Amino acid sequence: MLNTAGIEVSGFIRQQRLLDGLAALARFGALENGGVNRQALTPIELDARAWLIDWAITLGCEVFTDPCANLFFRRAGREDLPPVVTGSHIDTQPGGGNLDGCYGVIAGMEYLSALNDAGITTRRPIEVAVWMNEEGSRFAPGAMGSSAFVQPSRLTDYLTHRDAQGITLAEALDCCHQRFSMLTQRPALPMAAFVELHIEQGPVLERQDKPLAVVQGIQGLRWYQVTCLGQPAHAGTTPMADRRDAMTLARRCMAQLEQRAAALPAEELRLTFGRWEVEPNAINTIAGRVTFTLDFRHADARVLAQFDDWMQELTSEDVQVACLFAHAPVAFNAQLLAQQYACTQALEIDAATLTSGAFHDAMHLASHCPTTMFFVPSHNGISHNPAEHTDPQYLTLGAKALACCLTELANQPTGVTP
Amino acid sequence: MLNTAGIEVSGFIRQQRLLDGLAALARFGALENGGVNRQALTPIELDARAWLIDWAITLGCEVFTDPCANLFFRRAGREDLPPVVTGSHIDTQPGGGNLDGCYGVIAGMEYLSALNDAGITTRRPIEVAVWMNEEGSRFAPGAMGSSAFVQPSRLTDYLTHRDAQGITLAEALDCCHQRFSMLTQRPALPMAAFVELHIEQGPVLERQDKPLAVVQGIQGLRWYQVTCLGQPAHAGTTPMADRRDAMTLARRCMAQLEQRAAALPAEELRLTFGRWEVEPNAINTIAGRVTFTLDFRHADARVLAQFDDWMQELTSEDVQVACLFAHAPVAFNAQLLAQQYACTQALEIDAATLTSGAFHDAMHLASHCPTTMFFVPSHNGISHNPAEHTDPQYLTLGAKALACCLTELANQPTGVTP
Repeated sequence: MLNTAGIEVSGFIRQQRLLDGLAALARFGALENGGVNRQALTPIELDARAWLIDWAITLGCEVFTDPCANLFFRRAGREDLPPVVTGSHIDTQPGGGNLDGCYGVIAGMEYLSALNDAGITTRRPIEVAVWMNEEGSRFAPGAMGSSAFVQPSRLTDYLTHRDAQGITLAEALDCCHQRFSMLTQRPALPMAAFVELHIEQGPVLERQDKPLAVVQGIQGLRWYQVTCLGQPAHAGTTPMADRRDAMTLARRCMAQLEQRAAALPAEELRLTFGRWEVEPNAINTIAGRVTFTLDFRHADARVLAQFDDWMQELTSEDVQVACLFAHAPVAFNAQLLAQQYACTQALEIDAATLTSGAFHDAMHLASHCPTTMFFVPSHNGISHNPAEHTDPQYLTLGAKALACCLTELANQPTGVTP
Repeated sequence: MLNTAGIEVSGFIRQQRLLDGLAALARFGALENGGVNRQALTPIELDARAWLIDWAITLGCEVFTDPCANLFFRRAGREDLPPVVTGSHIDTQPGGGNLDGCYGVIAGMEYLSALNDAGITTRRPIEVAVWMNEEGSRFAPGAMGSSAFVQPSRLTDYLTHRDAQGITLAEALDCCHQRFSMLTQRPALPMAAFVELHIEQGPVLERQDKPLAVVQGIQGLRWYQVTCLGQPAHAGTTPMADRRDAMTLARRCMAQLEQRAAALPAEELRLTFGRWEVEPNAINTIAGRVTFTLDFRHADARVLAQFDDWMQELTSEDVQVACLFAHAPVAFNAQLLAQQYACTQALEIDAATLTSGAFHDAMHLASHCPTTMFFVPSHNGISHNPAEHTDPQYLTLGAKALACCLTELANQPTGVTP
């Protein structure tokens, strides 16, 4: 019968142990308001790593790291094949919650415990990965560890990036490697599959009253920065006809883009004007320079290309447009998706189908091995916030679905077709 | 013959001495880029005061101060009547030029020198006033010294205001009074007239190719702060229909106000959205709170009242509106305006007629005594900037017109009708 071993291991997932693991990790960088501030490679984050490493060793794992300080907890398989990997990240936003990333890591640890309790050794090895600096709130860009894992040459560039205190990534990595000098640094080995379990960080699953989603892929993204130039001048003495008001120009650019985007199917569209800088930013001075950012996401590469055209059309003598970051839409592996649906059906979970609007380490891993994700609901869609919450029963269901899926993948006689 | 004494004194105005005085004052707080940073009551500004006081004493003046650290250089008249007063301020914007305010003070000093050279004693005393903290860039609000002069009870409130370093105005005033403890503090005495000479700080005179303006009054003003509330959320995971984007809301509020204002006569209108604060101001987070300011000016009190109504109509559950500052339009004294035109005619100066869009100490003085202003052109309309510049011949013409007007007012047998 299909998924027998997977269902068996799922039965050993323990809700209380999962919640205890989440609570234990949340103590590293705990804020008074119930949130967590655990920035990548800070002393507190290194303490959390030490705690996780001890736990992994207790569970019988070998522990590896790599040049970008990703961690790998490896549970041996019956054969020395490329491993089936799960995991996520443990760095947080400055005022984050205790689930974003952490849930994927702790659910991976729970899966290792469940395998031990079930007394099962899978055919392929199992690994739980902890990807370095996914949030990008200490060092830009985000998803840095998984990015450098799949394309190691990127690390050379990242090494010179500095945090707000002026510390380079190279210095921060040195500290980490010195503290964990007992660990073997391993190059990026082939993986049979990567399955990431994460909170949705949006309101869709809760609104649909679904406990879990099989994630089809990740929306493509553009980050643009628009700089509108004007002439700073006195708000009282400069007649309206003589003004070059950078804020009025920026307002028009924003309205134009909103209007054009409104013609696109709203379901798949995300458009956000999140960061604004106005100079000189004085109540009685006309703005001489306004810089704002756009975050545009869509699952359709053609729509993203259309948006790139619009941004070029916006460019003028007074409007400078720079693309800060671009990523093509990612479609997850079809064979893995089928396995996920088979597991959710076998576990009688009424799973939704979703495309992720957020980045995840899985975005990069998809270029390295067959990859996919599960989402559990986020209460009120809130994330990056101490109020981040998911019903414990959904956290447990997610871990069960993950356990089932990983076990089946690890026991398959043949690998997944990339 | 009309204005004989005034024209005579004007003939003693010396361009080089005027420019030397401006250059000497600009050394206090000189910036490498040619600008000046001389914040009210800082050690550098106190040095500038000491230099001015010495100069005034050399010119034969008595020197007085008052509780708000305004300075008065008094040249005795033939009779002990309320004085005819000129002057402006010597504090600057953080990156200001060497003319804003300073020109009015140094032209006053040049007038005292010219009177000495001409050997003329006017009927009424002449005073040159240096008003404390006109720019308001160290302590809010601006025009603080003249404001507290005309209504001394305001000082009690101002005393607790703090600069960016947390120093209270009371502490800063104490330093100043201690350094100049030899000066007599004088209450606000009646004045026969106040005539302020200032740069236009706008482009109108240069565009009209006029060397001087007789200023009719000062536009009324409203400073509003608008706070738009939204729900901060992830830019990728939150569908457009589920968003409460504070930036989109703010953009709509701005567009609505711009649209309504566009229906008003543009000549007299000033509308500026100068200061913006976006929270959390992250590229990939929907804005949860956007605060922006409006600076609205008009010479017609009915239009200002109409604008107040619009701001109230903007208010909603998600849009909070607060009036930060309001000032009614000021019309300068008709008898003084007639004297100004008589002087410019006698001196064959082709003077324009203007309403000031900027605040000046004259705005407050108008409630204390008959008040008026002269403007000279600002090259390219630039002010609050190291590039602030006025053609030296216009600076001289302005000082001559001021000298003529002050002399005539000081010699008039009867006072000006308030």
